[in-house]
Amino acid sequence: MSDLTWRSTPFDDDKLREECGIFGVVGVAEAANFTALGLHALQHRGQEAGGIVVHDAEHGFNSVRRFGYVRDNFTSQDVMDMLPGTVGIGHVRYSTAGSKGATAIRDVQPFFGEFAMGGAAIAHNGNITNADALRRELIERGSIFQSSSDSECIIHLMARSLQRNIPERMKDALRRVEGAFSVIAMTRTKLIGVRDPLGVRPLVLGRVGEGWALSSETCALDIIGAEFVREIEPGEMVVITSESGVTSYRPFEQKRPRFCIFEHVYFSRPDSILGGRSVYSTREAIGRELAKEAPVEADLVCPVPDSGTPAAIGFSLESGIPYAMGIIRNQYMGRTFIEPTESIRNMGVRLKLNVNRALIRGKRVILVDDSVVRGTTSRKIKEMILDAGAKEVHFRIASPPTAWPCFYGVDTPQREKLLAASMSEEEMRRHLGVDSLRFISLDGLYRAVGEAKGRDPNAPQYCDACFSGEYPVEPADQLEKGFRLKAAE
Amino acid sequence: MSDLTWRSTPFDDDKLREECGIFGVVGVAEAANFTALGLHALQHRGQEAGGIVVHDAEHGFNSVRRFGYVRDNFTSQDVMDMLPGTVGIGHVRYSTAGSKGATAIRDVQPFFGEFAMGGAAIAHNGNITNADALRRELIERGSIFQSSSDSECIIHLMARSLQRNIPERMKDALRRVEGAFSVIAMTRTKLIGVRDPLGVRPLVLGRVGEGWALSSETCALDIIGAEFVREIEPGEMVVITSESGVTSYRPFEQKRPRFCIFEHVYFSRPDSILGGRSVYSTREAIGRELAKEAPVEADLVCPVPDSGTPAAIGFSLESGIPYAMGIIRNQYMGRTFIEPTESIRNMGVRLKLNVNRALIRGKRVILVDDSVVRGTTSRKIKEMILDAGAKEVHFRIASPPTAWPCFYGVDTPQREKLLAASMSEEEMRRHLGVDSLRFISLDGLYRAVGEAKGRDPNAPQYCDACFSGEYPVEPADQLEKGFRLKAAE
Amino acid sequence: MSDLTWRSTPFDDDKLREECGIFGVVGVAEAANFTALGLHALQHRGQEAGGIVVHDAEHGFNSVRRFGYVRDNFTSQDVMDMLPGTVGIGHVRYSTAGSKGATAIRDVQPFFGEFAMGGAAIAHNGNITNADALRRELIERGSIFQSSSDSECIIHLMARSLQRNIPERMKDALRRVEGAFSVIAMTRTKLIGVRDPLGVRPLVLGRVGEGWALSSETCALDIIGAEFVREIEPGEMVVITSESGVTSYRPFEQKRPRFCIFEHVYFSRPDSILGGRSVYSTREAIGRELAKEAPVEADLVCPVPDSGTPAAIGFSLESGIPYAMGIIRNQYMGRTFIEPTESIRNMGVRLKLNVNRALIRGKRVILVDDSVVRGTTSRKIKEMILDAGAKEVHFRIASPPTAWPCFYGVDTPQREKLLAASMSEEEMRRHLGVDSLRFISLDGLYRAVGEAKGRDPNAPQYCDACFSGEYPVEPADQLEKGFRLKAAE
Amino acid sequence: MSDLTWRSTPFDDDKLREECGIFGVVGVAEAANFTALGLHALQHRGQEAGGIVVHDAEHGFNSVRRFGYVRDNFTSQDVMDMLPGTVGIGHVRYSTAGSKGATAIRDVQPFFGEFAMGGAAIAHNGNITNADALRRELIERGSIFQSSSDSECIIHLMARSLQRNIPERMKDALRRVEGAFSVIAMTRTKLIGVRDPLGVRPLVLGRVGEGWALSSETCALDIIGAEFVREIEPGEMVVITSESGVTSYRPFEQKRPRFCIFEHVYFSRPDSILGGRSVYSTREAIGRELAKEAPVEADLVCPVPDSGTPAAIGFSLESGIPYAMGIIRNQYMGRTFIEPTESIRNMGVRLKLNVNRALIRGKRVILVDDSVVRGTTSRKIKEMILDAGAKEVHFRIASPPTAWPCFYGVDTPQREKLLAASMSEEEMRRHLGVDSLRFISLDGLYRAVGEAKGRDPNAPQYCDACFSGEYPVEPADQLEKGFRLKAAE
Repeated sequence: MSDLTWRSTPFDDDKLREECGIFGVVGVAEAANFTALGLHALQHRGQEAGGIVVHDAEHGFNSVRRFGYVRDNFTSQDVMDMLPGTVGIGHVRYSTAGSKGATAIRDVQPFFGEFAMGGAAIAHNGNITNADALRRELIERGSIFQSSSDSECIIHLMARSLQRNIPERMKDALRRVEGAFSVIAMTRTKLIGVRDPLGVRPLVLGRVGEGWALSSETCALDIIGAEFVREIEPGEMVVITSESGVTSYRPFEQKRPRFCIFEHVYFSRPDSILGGRSVYSTREAIGRELAKEAPVEADLVCPVPDSGTPAAIGFSLESGIPYAMGIIRNQYMGRTFIEPTESIRNMGVRLKLNVNRALIRGKRVILVDDSVVRGTTSRKIKEMILDAGAKEVHFRIASPPTAWPCFYGVDTPQREKLLAASMSEEEMRRHLGVDSLRFISLDGLYRAVGEAKGRDPNAPQYCDACFSGEYPVEPADQLEKGFRLKAAE
Repeated sequence: MSDLTWRSTPFDDDKLREECGIFGVVGVAEAANFTALGLHALQHRGQEAGGIVVHDAEHGFNSVRRFGYVRDNFTSQDVMDMLPGTVGIGHVRYSTAGSKGATAIRDVQPFFGEFAMGGAAIAHNGNITNADALRRELIERGSIFQSSSDSECIIHLMARSLQRNIPERMKDALRRVEGAFSVIAMTRTKLIGVRDPLGVRPLVLGRVGEGWALSSETCALDIIGAEFVREIEPGEMVVITSESGVTSYRPFEQKRPRFCIFEHVYFSRPDSILGGRSVYSTREAIGRELAKEAPVEADLVCPVPDSGTPAAIGFSLESGIPYAMGIIRNQYMGRTFIEPTESIRNMGVRLKLNVNRALIRGKRVILVDDSVVRGTTSRKIKEMILDAGAKEVHFRIASPPTAWPCFYGVDTPQREKLLAASMSEEEMRRHLGVDSLRFISLDGLYRAVGEAKGRDPNAPQYCDACFSGEYPVEPADQLEKGFRLKAAE
Repeated sequence: MSDLTWRSTPFDDDKLREECGIFGVVGVAEAANFTALGLHALQHRGQEAGGIVVHDAEHGFNSVRRFGYVRDNFTSQDVMDMLPGTVGIGHVRYSTAGSKGATAIRDVQPFFGEFAMGGAAIAHNGNITNADALRRELIERGSIFQSSSDSECIIHLMARSLQRNIPERMKDALRRVEGAFSVIAMTRTKLIGVRDPLGVRPLVLGRVGEGWALSSETCALDIIGAEFVREIEPGEMVVITSESGVTSYRPFEQKRPRFCIFEHVYFSRPDSILGGRSVYSTREAIGRELAKEAPVEADLVCPVPDSGTPAAIGFSLESGIPYAMGIIRNQYMGRTFIEPTESIRNMGVRLKLNVNRALIRGKRVILVDDSVVRGTTSRKIKEMILDAGAKEVHFRIASPPTAWPCFYGVDTPQREKLLAASMSEEEMRRHLGVDSLRFISLDGLYRAVGEAKGRDPNAPQYCDACFSGEYPVEPADQLEKGFRLKAAE
Repeated sequence: MSDLTWRSTPFDDDKLREECGIFGVVGVAEAANFTALGLHALQHRGQEAGGIVVHDAEHGFNSVRRFGYVRDNFTSQDVMDMLPGTVGIGHVRYSTAGSKGATAIRDVQPFFGEFAMGGAAIAHNGNITNADALRRELIERGSIFQSSSDSECIIHLMARSLQRNIPERMKDALRRVEGAFSVIAMTRTKLIGVRDPLGVRPLVLGRVGEGWALSSETCALDIIGAEFVREIEPGEMVVITSESGVTSYRPFEQKRPRFCIFEHVYFSRPDSILGGRSVYSTREAIGRELAKEAPVEADLVCPVPDSGTPAAIGFSLESGIPYAMGIIRNQYMGRTFIEPTESIRNMGVRLKLNVNRALIRGKRVILVDDSVVRGTTSRKIKEMILDAGAKEVHFRIASPPTAWPCFYGVDTPQREKLLAASMSEEEMRRHLGVDSLRFISLDGLYRAVGEAKGRDPNAPQYCDACFSGEYPVEPADQLEKGFRLKAAE
């Protein structure tokens, strides 16, 4: 069932897409304003819709959920007046694969449930890998789901817990769920944060005045002037109130962490801090590593804007080949055109990117991109570059071949749509029609993110399932739907 | 919790307001189009919001719920394309007293729930008098409510039923609810209609081509060209499929019917048929009865537009005093101004009504209105009439004094706001400042609706609680909140 | 050239339509608020668009022009804040025949022009019959037109006048224009009103506190609490300031007045006063006259809502046959559905009207309507009445057969579309398929509007060109386009 | 007079802003689609509003003008269906200083006028310096202005010309206007382009299939796949039809060209071609020149995004100091928040920019920006950088001090608001609170744009009035309003 209210035509479907950003704050005067700002800073993690829930002693729980950008929905006095409170959480999202084309506002988080002892709202980033089974069981027992989102399972499990307070109910619920997820929840007075035992998805803690904030990334702490305190640890649950501060719990059995390596490559914002280093610097290091692994003679190093920029700079610094902006991005593009004409839809990537013709003509160009998914955009960019008169085109990719779908909260095409699932590097080069194509090695990537010895094949330090096909959490629902693991191939 | 999206300033808050109209259809090609037309014809029963749910084998359940008029939301190809199916139900509503000023789209019916064996949507008109207690019990057992609407209880009771099919689950659920309600529900293939044991709220059955329709009133059958078959009986539940037609059940203990007499006075549309007679004719008969009971010498009989019109015509026909339109309604008024300026808000009733000054000057005028609730509008109309130079003003009211609130799905002010709760007829006359004021007697009203001997005080044939204070179903939730029955005064 | 911004599907195109209502006020604190209220009361004269211009010493001239109802566009604080001033004029309009389907906001009045000595805004109701020729001449001399509206000619003629002040320039301009028009104009401090020499279109003067108002009808004076002073006389121009009050001029050669008789029949609101009598009373008198001229035995007299109502009451009072509402109007209809689906468009009149089936069944019914234009709606209504089981259907029409188009500011179909242009009364009866059809005679209509001796064929007291084909002002532009006068047939 | 419909709060008012981009096309199947794409590529030249006019033999002239981005207004099938034709022109704009806060849709170009022999639409970029005087004269003679825009003068002058065809009328009109402007106009079949005698504003010609395009910049030719033919020359007027191709005229007395040097610095898009070289390369050259003129020891060269990027890259390449993105731009910012809350408004630049804290900490940072206008943003950026722990901050500016307002179509603050108008470089350094501040010299800038010997003080090759105070066209209207030239100081 769906309340269709918004249709769009995305022009950049050739990327993996983080599906969510989450943010929460407690102990501040205007929780909604801070949450809106935090979500604005996390907009790159989800541009389709956003929601904010706040609580206030006088007005109770209030929520606004809307399609579109944070800046368009959560900045006016009108909307903010509906959201009084000193504790609040928020969420930005892409549509999940399941509800595409029939996106429903009821699928927009945070979700809210009234319990016997109050109420709670919850927002999550990631994926519960046994959500289908949990949902069936809960429905069988009489729960009614508002949405098709798997995070709603957590609310229902909490509602059925026999524990007396919400943190304990949350623990009860979390013991039933499997997967890769970070959760921010709130009660009337508490802000709660949880990371799954492997810590696949990020979650950080900040101090803002007398209050506290939780966020997917540190860039959202910066925008509200919060100080970055620490990352929430894998498997940790924190319960925060303005009176008692942060209390830490360990509701899960302990495991070795497996943080998502693709957050370093593409998802996180370059000004965020991951593992003590700026994401920008890590990406520059990836570019340097790539220049070492796959050098080539050329006149210019150009990024595919904007995500290829730091790696291109690193490649240039390492190789000594001048960095230049050979492709210019139209900054007024937006993500979509609403109901474009056929003619405009056919323009595709040209609406967004233009080649700097006078610069490129006659040059040997290295194009640095963060990843190749379907390869559709890469082909178009190559054509534009050649049309502009480039002498040679060399692709350098700041991640290994993406050959496996992600089931942990990232929107990936089905395996057969991934170029690297069925082609070798050389086949891809021919398919793209470029003079050379090289991906960074998996070891090279591990080195660039700080693992001097590269990947430990027996106990990989990161989740790299999209490259390796090794899934640290069994994708139970997917297996049931017919997905075949590498081992089964 | 509320998703605020719409604010309005009603200009006519001096009426009792039916809170809902419901409509459903099965076995037709375009269920949504028929449902939209039906709801358009029922718009007088609820102007704040509307919703439609349909089911289609290919697309599953789909729903659109919107604030505003049916004609503005449910007529465009865009919206209708989202609602494919051969079975559908719909709902129009006023806000209930509880959520006024914070109306939430999540409170807009129909509600939808997924069950183990499929899914069901439900829309209701009326009130479940033990909803608060049921809700507490359900929450205690882990149900999560989407809305503050009492009809959601039925869905949760169905979800927890151990029965194997939805009609049986519906029966299970209905046995737990008390109150005055008509329900239209649907599954993937079935249309279901239920009236409470007293039959307080209306529900009729129609035949449209090879399909069937259920509706609050017959006027909605007319608009889709359906033939009026019969009223659903008090305490009856019908289950309709396009294959098997109509099957009737009796899930409740049988009781003597108590249909809402105010449907005859005001709620129903004059072109609908109730009890085999057009509502218009009944209202004309009320006017005739009133002319017999409370004659007065005058020059003109004028209706307070538009609801007083049929009774005024009856009064004129009985009394021989010429009928005239002394007050003209601005037909471009709409129900509300969105965020009017202070100056315009102060205009009040003058925005909607104007006195036919040249006609009224120097005349003795009988004004016929359907009811007096707070008396605020009556006072303003009297002033307008006197300003225009009327010599005498006589009010004749087509219902007895409204002295008690309705707890069966009608929006009534609190008892202390009802003029008749604290004033005698003469006090009211002085308060309104008119030359005479007379209400029809309760017996007179019963005669006009066809009870030749008037009201049977031992076993009243109708629900007339708003006049008599005798509530046929105990208003349990209200008593808990402190409401005192007549016997307790 | 057009800025298309609004499309609609009118469902009632079977009426002549007054194309404009005009209103102005000077010497009041909030001119825009008063003007908005006045236009709201005149909405029946033009529902497609509206505009307001005000002037204020500090902010200069400001204007807002919008498609849609006054109540939707000119009531919010936001819009009113853009319109400060103590003098203002406004306009509501239908689209003119010329720009239908391509309605441009630039055609929405009032128009504004800056002159050497200040600026002036102008709104008009009616038609300038030599507008095409004037426009050609002005363009030839270098004027640039903003709109396709003929009232813009007046502004350009004023701009080119050599007179020193705006009232004198207005006189200069008016001497060049021919036609049937009422004009309201304003300068920074003056409110100006003009009626053409024949006084075809109405214009009245009112006193509101210390200020003055001009309006198409008195009903707009009522809503702002203004006192009706007098009608502006045919051929009169009044210039009003808050300091000097009303000064009267006679810029035209004097002629015998020919007021539009159709204002009595249909255009004006029933609560307005024309010629010292309420329009309602005149229409009731038309109904009485019709009952005398064309009696018939029947059970019920029913109006075609809403315009046939007063005449139906008069017919009932004269004939003694009971008046009843046999056809019920859906008051939530609005004028249009925006982009309706095909199925809904085909519903046509059923969306708006429903027959009171239980009342009509087996009855001989007299239907009273104000006019028959194309006859399309009349046929549908007859069908609905017969479907409902009426035994006989008799049409009685409160105006003579409409056989000629109006060229004086009324939207009439082309002559060949008018039923009465090519059919006799009996042919029309057969075409409509009713038991009898009678129109009031032209003399009967004159008697009803107060001319005891009926129409003076040598010097008709009214403009009745739509019935008689006798055009008091030569329709020069139309003749040029090929229209043939009666004499030429 | 204004039709207020749109309010915004710009967050980046510390730049000079090009006020317009213009585009036109003839001889293509879908002129409107091409024009929309062209305007989308020119959006950086004007983001407030846009308009398109097309002509088609069947439908005549049609126009749509809207506030907001091209991508939001001119891409849907609905709008494009209103704009059929094979010849079309379009315009994007900022508000001019005059109408700020009261922006009127009637000021949005293109303007349209009907003339005796047809009609013409016109769009312009630049400024007519004697527009006030021309307007007074035209009003005195009876012209009525629709807008407050100076380009409307041209239309009125054309309307009053005695010439027989529109190109000749255009020539007549142009002989009366003074200033710096590029014009694109159209008739029913012709596309016309004009540059003022000094060629201050850009205008280029392109070939697209069998048709032709005119555009402010070449980047708009790229998006529609047009081939760049040549620049329209200073003082040239081209008349283009699909049959006869391009005919060139010289309506003005010949002068030495003075192209706007700031187009190289900031206005034009980096992928456009000016003077045979990519704007990107010119800016990189400016950065190199700046590194030579004003070297400094540091750890990082960071651009102030996005306009400082090419110069920062050039500075890095020349100096050998590594280039890095120390400041990250939120790409979801948009230009404005609609009616933001007070709290959000106070965030200012932090909503748009964030410092890459982990990268900057402890570093000596060179910040490269294109210009300093008021200095407000520069101060905030400096604070952000120091807050993030930078050891030293050095500003390097890719243009000389902006000390004079531009009167040739650029939105500049009044002279007293320009930091450089009242402060020396050292005073500015102290005001901004940075370790060093250096602007490129005027000669250095001339060298970077290709004048090997720098500026010729006797006959400057460019218009550089904003730096030098030497105005190549007398700003007549401004002098009348009290502006004092350098010589008069």
